[in-house]
Amino acid sequence: MSVVAISGGVGGAKLALGLDRSLPAGELTVLVNTGDDFDHLGLKICPDIDTVLYTLADLADPAQGWGRRNETWTLMQTLESLGEETWFKLGDADTALHVARTRRLKAGSTLTEVSEHFRTQFGITSRILPMTNECVQTRIDTDEGDLAFQDYFVRRRCAPRAHTIRFVGATDAAPAPGVIAALASPGLEAIVLCPSNPYLSIDPLLAIPGLRKSLESRAAPLIAVSPLIGGAAVKGPTAKIMQELGIPMTPVSIFEHYRGLIDALVVDSVDADAAARLPIPTFSTATLMTTLDDRLRLARFVLDCARTLPRH
Amino acid sequence: MSVVAISGGVGGAKLALGLDRSLPAGELTVLVNTGDDFDHLGLKICPDIDTVLYTLADLADPAQGWGRRNETWTLMQTLESLGEETWFKLGDADTALHVARTRRLKAGSTLTEVSEHFRTQFGITSRILPMTNECVQTRIDTDEGDLAFQDYFVRRRCAPRAHTIRFVGATDAAPAPGVIAALASPGLEAIVLCPSNPYLSIDPLLAIPGLRKSLESRAAPLIAVSPLIGGAAVKGPTAKIMQELGIPMTPVSIFEHYRGLIDALVVDSVDADAAARLPIPTFSTATLMTTLDDRLRLARFVLDCARTLPRH
Repeated sequence: MSVVAISGGVGGAKLALGLDRSLPAGELTVLVNTGDDFDHLGLKICPDIDTVLYTLADLADPAQGWGRRNETWTLMQTLESLGEETWFKLGDADTALHVARTRRLKAGSTLTEVSEHFRTQFGITSRILPMTNECVQTRIDTDEGDLAFQDYFVRRRCAPRAHTIRFVGATDAAPAPGVIAALASPGLEAIVLCPSNPYLSIDPLLAIPGLRKSLESRAAPLIAVSPLIGGAAVKGPTAKIMQELGIPMTPVSIFEHYRGLIDALVVDSVDADAAARLPIPTFSTATLMTTLDDRLRLARFVLDCARTLPRH
Repeated sequence: MSVVAISGGVGGAKLALGLDRSLPAGELTVLVNTGDDFDHLGLKICPDIDTVLYTLADLADPAQGWGRRNETWTLMQTLESLGEETWFKLGDADTALHVARTRRLKAGSTLTEVSEHFRTQFGITSRILPMTNECVQTRIDTDEGDLAFQDYFVRRRCAPRAHTIRFVGATDAAPAPGVIAALASPGLEAIVLCPSNPYLSIDPLLAIPGLRKSLESRAAPLIAVSPLIGGAAVKGPTAKIMQELGIPMTPVSIFEHYRGLIDALVVDSVDADAAARLPIPTFSTATLMTTLDDRLRLARFVLDCARTLPRH
């Protein structure tokens, strides 16, 4: 059974880990948002790809949700003493990945090739594909002006009020090699929209015409997992963004956002009633993923739900 | 009393430290070899400037002679696990300097400006000037082919037999801002050629026509310190290079190399007899610099000798 997961950073990576550990080796392909990617201190940083890599390689820091555990911070401390910007935290091991990626990209490799190299070096059997090798930039129009994603998310800690979200370059971007093939694979049994932020982390992928078209013409069922639990978001700016965009914090909003695209929605048990009236199949279970067991259990639940859905 | 020191890496930096600590704050200017500079993993690395910075900031690793003490190696270990080259050792704190330098150069600063920023951040009162802001590359023609300096020196550990040494770009390079002014300063009391490798570390500076001309037209006395002690070199490839180039390991060879340029030569006490017949003033003392006291004592000795020499 081969599966494609579509993921942003932390929340998506948790479910991707559950899927990676639940499926036979090599049967999972994770399509990852690159709208957050940026150049910082001369280094090419891909926060969502990095989080998926670290999570699937069992190297992630479970406490902070980004970066590596057992990390050291000598470089960051020295950068600070040299008068460099330190709002984006660069651990020593994490920086090695950015240095290696930057070097390989400059030497002519694509982000797809570099990501493939990294996941192999990390011993990850699932494939990790960037959504595109072209430049797509998530930008937030806020009451403090138009901000690049990391400026908004990390430097300003999502403090500015968001008005609109744009994915600059998405319309002209082609899906990265392997993306269309994975979605169109005859052996594909399910496509899972992970519980990442729909507006910031999943929408960049859906904004790429070729990728969206490939999803729309899929044969495999597409099932989304709501990032909301009882009117709140587990982590990150989802709740604040929804509030500022005037979107009610209910699974109905998640359905409306993905309407016409998804075949089914998995919601938390506390949202079962709110989701019951939706015109697509809904499934409810505990969706909070604190432990590895939580991730495995939710992954198996999502796969079981997907198996009940008809192919197109 | 203002003084200019001309230095390569380790050996030169030791005497530069002695001079820095012996002179009133701000009276020393160190002109540093940049022929060893190279780009590695996308980072601009200036080994001799780094060694002088770390040494004068009291951050240098006294055991290995390069890099910083209390260094951590997380980034290097991770680079190795990612399949990157590891022949050039990059400590975590050291890498921060390279990252900051690379960023500042790309942002339009000159190497002079970046070095000035670093020495200020490190609390160094002496000025540290690169010999040039243009590209000069030390290359060694060996029996294994033409090698860039770091390929020869670090990657191949000076194993190939050297035939000739070239400083590509030197003829067309201009001295960096401040270099000519420092050498022509009316208040300059002495110019010191530090006991760095004459062929690999000092010659790149002398190969820049404007710099050499400025030395030749100096008013202040120019005194060199021999890097040899009793037919041996303290560290590095000096002995091997001299042997391969067919140059006898005596202070006479150092004099011949600098003939017409230097006013006096400081040699080790064991070489006093060999230097006695030279047609310029020679001074002998213990030149091995193991402790900080050694560096201070030699620096004061060199300054005292210089004070006995006439101005031009």
